[in-house]
Parts: sequence; structure tokens; C-alpha cells
Amino acid sequence: MMHAPTQKQSMLGQGRLSRGRVAQCTRKSIRRSCQVRAGKTSTGPRVAIVGVTGAVGMEFLQILKQRDFPYSSMKMLASARSAGKKVDFDGETYTVEELTENSFGDCDLALFSAGGSATKKFAPAASDAGCTVVDNSSAFRMTDGVPLVVPEINVEAMKDIKLGKGGIIANPNCSTIIALTAVTPIHKAVGVKRMVVSTYQAASGAGQAAMEELELQTREALDGKPITTNIFPRQYAFNLFSHNSDVDVDLGYNEEEMKLVKETAKIWNTKDVKVTGTCVRVPVMRAHAESINLELNAPLTVDEARKLLENAAGVSVIDNRKENDFPTPLVASYNDDVYVGRIRRDISRDDDCGIDLFVCGDQIRKGAALNAVQIAEALL
Amino acid sequence: MMHAPTQKQSMLGQGRLSRGRVAQCTRKSIRRSCQVRAGKTSTGPRVAIVGVTGAVGMEFLQILKQRDFPYSSMKMLASARSAGKKVDFDGETYTVEELTENSFGDCDLALFSAGGSATKKFAPAASDAGCTVVDNSSAFRMTDGVPLVVPEINVEAMKDIKLGKGGIIANPNCSTIIALTAVTPIHKAVGVKRMVVSTYQAASGAGQAAMEELELQTREALDGKPITTNIFPRQYAFNLFSHNSDVDVDLGYNEEEMKLVKETAKIWNTKDVKVTGTCVRVPVMRAHAESINLELNAPLTVDEARKLLENAAGVSVIDNRKENDFPTPLVASYNDDVYVGRIRRDISRDDDCGIDLFVCGDQIRKGAALNAVQIAEALL
Repeated sequence: MMHAPTQKQSMLGQGRLSRGRVAQCTRKSIRRSCQVRAGKTSTGPRVAIVGVTGAVGMEFLQILKQRDFPYSSMKMLASARSAGKKVDFDGETYTVEELTENSFGDCDLALFSAGGSATKKFAPAASDAGCTVVDNSSAFRMTDGVPLVVPEINVEAMKDIKLGKGGIIANPNCSTIIALTAVTPIHKAVGVKRMVVSTYQAASGAGQAAMEELELQTREALDGKPITTNIFPRQYAFNLFSHNSDVDVDLGYNEEEMKLVKETAKIWNTKDVKVTGTCVRVPVMRAHAESINLELNAPLTVDEARKLLENAAGVSVIDNRKENDFPTPLVASYNDDVYVGRIRRDISRDDDCGIDLFVCGDQIRKGAALNAVQIAEALL
Repeated sequence: MMHAPTQKQSMLGQGRLSRGRVAQCTRKSIRRSCQVRAGKTSTGPRVAIVGVTGAVGMEFLQILKQRDFPYSSMKMLASARSAGKKVDFDGETYTVEELTENSFGDCDLALFSAGGSATKKFAPAASDAGCTVVDNSSAFRMTDGVPLVVPEINVEAMKDIKLGKGGIIANPNCSTIIALTAVTPIHKAVGVKRMVVSTYQAASGAGQAAMEELELQTREALDGKPITTNIFPRQYAFNLFSHNSDVDVDLGYNEEEMKLVKETAKIWNTKDVKVTGTCVRVPVMRAHAESINLELNAPLTVDEARKLLENAAGVSVIDNRKENDFPTPLVASYNDDVYVGRIRRDISRDDDCGIDLFVCGDQIRKGAALNAVQIAEALL
């Protein structure tokens, strides 16, 4: 499972090797999320992975291994359908166990990436059993008392939760994490009053099956065969479409867009920020892009914005106007950072209170599994 | 050349048949662009197609035939490299002739889709010879005295130019035409103060070779082979990237974005509109999508906006929130209209002066060849 990607996978952005950017404790890293290199150790927490057979579950394991996350025991959990499957991790083979309310009595930490209904049932059970939960689903993100955390941004929101003492910490939605990792350094400097976001979202956000369908459909399209549409109700290959989440018939916003609106306010702990978004799926495998227009509370030059971003934890700037070299989803794929470029003064404004950005981030890593593991690291 | 598309071409969006939406003289059509169904007729203008072997040149012929554009003679022109090739049109076979300054003495109308430098040289020569030019390039768009026309929007700008009397009329850039066909009905009703546009642009905007490279790269990626990058300096298949036009190193905007800014002001004949744009190429064959955030001079409800769009010439509304059915590039491909959906009140504003839209339009048709033929029809 921890295999190197084939060339085909690399070309699809499905198996691109990390460019060796495993985070180090540099001045850019926030103290609490510095890695504790340990691997299996008797002093580490007892860890459970919930939903281990999914795309994010598999990525949890890759990232825990890459970052030598300390653990004394590891438990692989999934629905009854996947129970009995074998999972290799850190040189050992584990049998996937069925997720039940009794799964967590001997665990200190559970990384959840399960469906909303399973999460609503089992995450509180885990917490009640003294197991601290980091949850990748949307089930508890907007629940009062549940911190919604991007470690580079608001790690202080989880200060009251201790490892092995229960509690739930929510991982924000992928497009929120990727946008805010880039935008927050600017927000902290001058204040963001309003954001207009248009996304270019990868298949991975809809799970492994969506990535496989995109590949299948692409082959079918190239061969002139009828298109298989099991996951989405329309052709995805060589096409794009408004995000597949439900649309509020009154507001006209889909759930993905409302997550961006609501989660931004919670993470920034403010009601004063205004967000509008248009979320779109594009035929890319596993990294999202976002075009972001910022209205600021105070003037900021492009050079100041670029400097803020260059010094920000979890951000890499690619902004070469002369060579037309800016972030792309393939550059971001399998890397940890959020890549930012197209840093420009908004020429539609008469003042210097507008900045345009273009950001790319790996949806499965920083958009999901990596951010959750960083939260877990902050608990150590 | 006028063949029906294969199933493969349809699936790629390269050969999708028109859904029979050849424009008719309905109440939606503006009077001057109503079709004059005639075909070859002794009373029709003598027509030249310049750059006939390119993607837009080929589309000129398809559209002239579909709309039974009247002509008494047809001349096929291209660079020396393509001279001698055969082109079928309306049941006759033509030999492509080399474009020279003397090509236009016996022509009343020339549809140009050639490179910028060829256009700068030969379009004035054509005009001087009494041949009226409709030019698809950017060469003369911002030139004083050259009307920049989208017939549904500002046909009055070309009122002083007469067929067979010389003169140049410029076709706007594809992303401008597609955005403004949708936005202008709203602008005419309440005034657009500011637009924030993010584009999702197809390969076709970079020409036939870019479409072929996207198909080739996609096969290579699926087969795990090295990627061919002759047209763009990076992988396009399963990826996206900031538009390939040159970037102004001071402003940070690329040429495609500046076209949107400048052409909007010229077409709307105002200096008061403000535009910021982020132009991005996505792996789609021939229809552009655009996410558009509008700041209005006066309040407008969503119902009012939808009604304006439903009644607008050249616009089709697909805006089904309940079924999550909105415009896609494949729906727009090979069709004439600009498709508009995601019509929403911008919830980031406290007033009712913000509207979000998502539009899709065929880049080769309305974005280029169709708009030029509509201009030619308005000259008849």
C-alpha cells in the first residue's frame, strides 16, 4: 500500500512522489505542530484509524508513516463491509476491524474519515470512552464547543482538548483549508473584509470512486465509447460542472460554498468577514485550485502580500510573472504546502485594498489527511 | 470537412452536433442579425475567408453553410504554407490561395482569422481595396474607429460601415464575448459597477494544435508515458494552469485578463465599469466557462435577473437548483447560445446589489466564428 507510484499514476497526479517536502521544524513551522519523530514506541498514544480503507484513510497511514508519528498501538477500523481486509502499515499487517461503539476503550486518539452518519454515531462514543477524535467529516464542524482547526491558523482553539481525555476536533472542509492557509496571513496583517472565491476542484474530494470514474470516462471518451456515470450524473471527462453537493433552493448556494462561508467565520472567530463562492469540479485528480479576490480592511502592496505569504507556515509561493510560472494542481499533488501565485493588486479598485490570488493544494493531504495529522501532532 | 462528428469526437466535445439551435428570427433575435437564408446567389456579396485552414476558419465555413449565408463567390485564403490545399464548401471544392495584398480586389467581405502580424498587414489592404473586414484577431480591437462588436449588445457601433465599402470591424476576444453576452442584459437594466471574473478556458482558444495536444497528452498520461509538451510548456492533461498569454510584469495581469478589462469598457462604451479577472486553462476541448461576480449600481432580485437573461438574445438559462443542473462546457459545445446558471444573490453583501453567475459558451462558435458571421449578417 505504501508503494511508489507508477509513472502512469504520476502523470495522472494520482501517485506523484512528494518532492521531499516533509515538514521540518523551521522558523516557518508553528511550534506545536513540529513533528515528533518516533514511530512505534511504548510511550506513544494508542491510535485508531476510522475509515481506513477510503482515500483519506489510506492517506492518514502514509502521512503518519512519513512523519514518524509516535504510536504504541494501531487499530484499523471500517464499516462491516470492509472488516477482514488486510492493511500494511510500518512493516506490520493489520486486519481491518468493524467499527462499533466499543472500538475505542483502548485508544487515546482516533483519526476519523467516515461518512457523516457513522461519524455522528461513533465519534461521540469514542470521545465518551476517553479517546480524542480528530474528524475529517462535516458532522461536527459547526457544533458549538467543537474546535474547527487549521494548525497554522488557529491551533489555540483546541487548547482545552487533551490526548486520551476525549473530545472532538473537526478538520475543516478541503476548499476552506486550502483557501484559508493562503489567505489568513493576509487576514492577520490587515484584515480581510470580503472574499470572492471560485474553485477548480479535483475528483478526489468525491472519493476514490470518483477518481476511478474520471479515469474510466476519459478512456471511454478517447475511445468514442458510451460514458459510465455511476458517481456523477453527467460526463466529467473533458468537462466541468457546478459542485455536486446539494443546492439550497432558496439561497442558490451549494453546501460546498456554504462550508466556505461558515467555516471561514468560525476559524477566524469573527462574524465580520463576508464570503461568496462558486464551487466547480474540474477533471483533475487530487489537487484543488482556487481563484480568490480579497477586499481588505487596509491597504496592502503586492510586495507586502508576497512577503507575508513567503513567511507563512504551510505556504509556498510560485509567482513568476516573467516566465508565466504559477501554481498548478499537478505541482501541488502529493505535496504538503498550499501553493500561492498570481499575487496582484486588484485593478478594479481605486484603492490598494484589493488583492487577487490563485492557490493550489493537495485535496487529500492538506485538504484532509495531513491537516488532521497536524492536529493530532499538536495534541502530543 | 463538413462531416458529422464521430462518437469519440462527441464525447471529447470536439464534434458534438448542434442541438438544432440554429438561430431563428424570434422575438429574442435582434432585427439586424436575423438570418438571411440564401446560400449561393448572384446577388450575394463576394466573400473571402482568411485563415481558412485553422480551427476558426473551418468553423466560419460550417456556420456560413448552416445559416445559408448569401454569397456570390467564395475565396479561400491562407498563408503560403497552406496554399494549394483543397477545401469543400456548399458542394464545391475550392483550392486554398496564398493570402497577399492583392487578394481582395474582387471581394466585398472578408472574414479574418489569422495571426496578429498577418492581420495587421492584410486587413488594411483588404479595406483599402473596398473589402469590408470582420477580424477575429486582437490586432485592431482597441484601435480608435474600429468598432468592437457583439451583435446582441452593440450592433449600433458598426452603423457607419457598409458592405463592400471597406472598413474593419473587430470581433472581441472569446472570453469577453461569452461574459458580456450574459452580463449585458443586466448591465443595461441596472448598470454593472464592477465584475470579478474567473475563467475556465478550453484548449480551443489556443488553436487546433492545442486541442490535439490535450488529447495526445491525455492518452500518454493514461498509459503512463512521458508527456508531449509542444504547445504549452507543462502538462495540460488532468491539470490546469494560469492562461498562457504573456503576463504584464508590473501589473501581474495576463493579456487575456486585460482583454476582458479593456474590451468590456469599449463594448459598453463607458469608462465607469471596473473589471478584475483571473484567466485559467482547464482540460476541456472547446467551450469556456466563467464564474462571474457582479456588483450592481442598483438592486436587482434573482427573479428579475433570471427574467432579463431568459429574454436576452443569444442566452439560454439552465438554472435548476433542485436537480443541480447548471451549464457545463459540454452542453455549450457546438451550440450557439451562451448558457447561464447559478444565478444567485451575492450573500457576501448586505444589499441586493450583488449577483453571481456561471456561464458557458462555445469558444469557437459564439466566442469566435459565430459572432463574426453574425457581424457579417448585420452588414447585409
